[in-house]
Amino acid sequence: MSCLSDDLKIELRAVAEAAADAARVETLQHFRTSDLAAESKRVDFDPVTVADRAAEAAIRKVIGSRRPEDAILGEEHASTAGTSGLTWVVDPIDGTRGYLSGTPTWGVLIAVSDARGPLFGLIDQPYIGERFVGGFGVAECIGPRGRAALRSRAPRPLADAFLFTTFPEVGTDAERCAFRRLANRVRLTRYGMDCYAYALIAAGQVDLVVEAGLQPYDVHAPIALIEAAGGIVTDWTGGPAHGGGRVLAAANAEIHAAALAILTESA
Amino acid sequence: MSCLSDDLKIELRAVAEAAADAARVETLQHFRTSDLAAESKRVDFDPVTVADRAAEAAIRKVIGSRRPEDAILGEEHASTAGTSGLTWVVDPIDGTRGYLSGTPTWGVLIAVSDARGPLFGLIDQPYIGERFVGGFGVAECIGPRGRAALRSRAPRPLADAFLFTTFPEVGTDAERCAFRRLANRVRLTRYGMDCYAYALIAAGQVDLVVEAGLQPYDVHAPIALIEAAGGIVTDWTGGPAHGGGRVLAAANAEIHAAALAILTESA
Repeated sequence: MSCLSDDLKIELRAVAEAAADAARVETLQHFRTSDLAAESKRVDFDPVTVADRAAEAAIRKVIGSRRPEDAILGEEHASTAGTSGLTWVVDPIDGTRGYLSGTPTWGVLIAVSDARGPLFGLIDQPYIGERFVGGFGVAECIGPRGRAALRSRAPRPLADAFLFTTFPEVGTDAERCAFRRLANRVRLTRYGMDCYAYALIAAGQVDLVVEAGLQPYDVHAPIALIEAAGGIVTDWTGGPAHGGGRVLAAANAEIHAAALAILTESA
Repeated sequence: MSCLSDDLKIELRAVAEAAADAARVETLQHFRTSDLAAESKRVDFDPVTVADRAAEAAIRKVIGSRRPEDAILGEEHASTAGTSGLTWVVDPIDGTRGYLSGTPTWGVLIAVSDARGPLFGLIDQPYIGERFVGGFGVAECIGPRGRAALRSRAPRPLADAFLFTTFPEVGTDAERCAFRRLANRVRLTRYGMDCYAYALIAAGQVDLVVEAGLQPYDVHAPIALIEAAGGIVTDWTGGPAHGGGRVLAAANAEIHAAALAILTESA
């Protein structure tokens, strides 16, 4: 949406960062406490904690007061309609299992999108105190070592690539088989990083992240971040990924094409 | 080794912390740089970087100057003999694959041991700025939120437990099968945390870590830390784990016994 003014872009980033700051208070209050209660939304253990709900409420409060004309789509609360054509897409804690386990791999995802997809997004890791921001011409990390520009990795052979996904099961049997075909071709496959793996593509550390069964709020912020850093994110057919489902995130077009060819091979 | 004086315990901890401080400089200098060169020590990709070697050299320099009478066993350099009966057991970067991928899950492991096993150990995560310390009557974390005592989790049913290992392949086929039997009985299984998973047992966040194919320098510091926090670490037969190999780390004796029974079941 190139018609956004520079002032509006600055405002949207400021609102996103204020919302992330508000969420930090809520997520850190409960992180690594012994009394955190996890309910299960589904039988296969999808934990929701008071921290998820409180963090999303804090984010919605910031956005609602500063951008009342925008829509909000979040994981834990009902969607809010808007009139501006802009939608905030929010996951208050991406990686709740990691959060419940104390790992520093979960994150707060906040994106601003229009009908065509994400325009701007951030991945915030409150415990480390690290924020990956991408969109509106900027890609940067603000963290323990200060502020640094983000640039995804240059092309290299698939045989040298680092591939991440959160769960080795990946998704359905067919999805797992496709993932395994790809994993067998790369140098290193790692697991368990939640949304942090997407941040590592933007940071030039990882070549590929492949996941399945995602929701829109899982991917909008990573898409904006990775594309701003020079990478590319699609579904497993090469089409848009912001609807969720199967996601292939890559550091550059060349490694994306190589991975896509393997994911789409017939078994 | 109860005959160590309080003054000596204080000195040993101070030396361990000074060595970890020195290693931080080396590991952070190369972390998330784009020019980090990884060689492969083995065909299955066990990367060694200049950071590993520089960090171990820095650790050895501190120990050698302040405790010349102690032996040193490290991953990257030849062992140093000693006369005191104490051995420093050092892994300069545990989780080099994680280090090369930019994940904040690797750590610097430094332990002080005698012939019977580890007495004191620390797991240091330099990027987060987080240090888990255990032994000589202390178990604590010094990190982004200051200093906090560590206490491993109280007993709960195996069906509610969180289980970690770094690689889903675990080890040999038989080892992977034993691990899968256990994984099928717990609530949540997660991967990819390197030594950080052991720290999370000490921090009361995780119930079990099961690994195979380890070296002594991989386990001495975790053993000291976890035992100081109230947990228990053995091999898969219930015997001492500080020789490496197959390791079962548990938050308490009850969950340890439950997990051990499953690991030792015949397939």
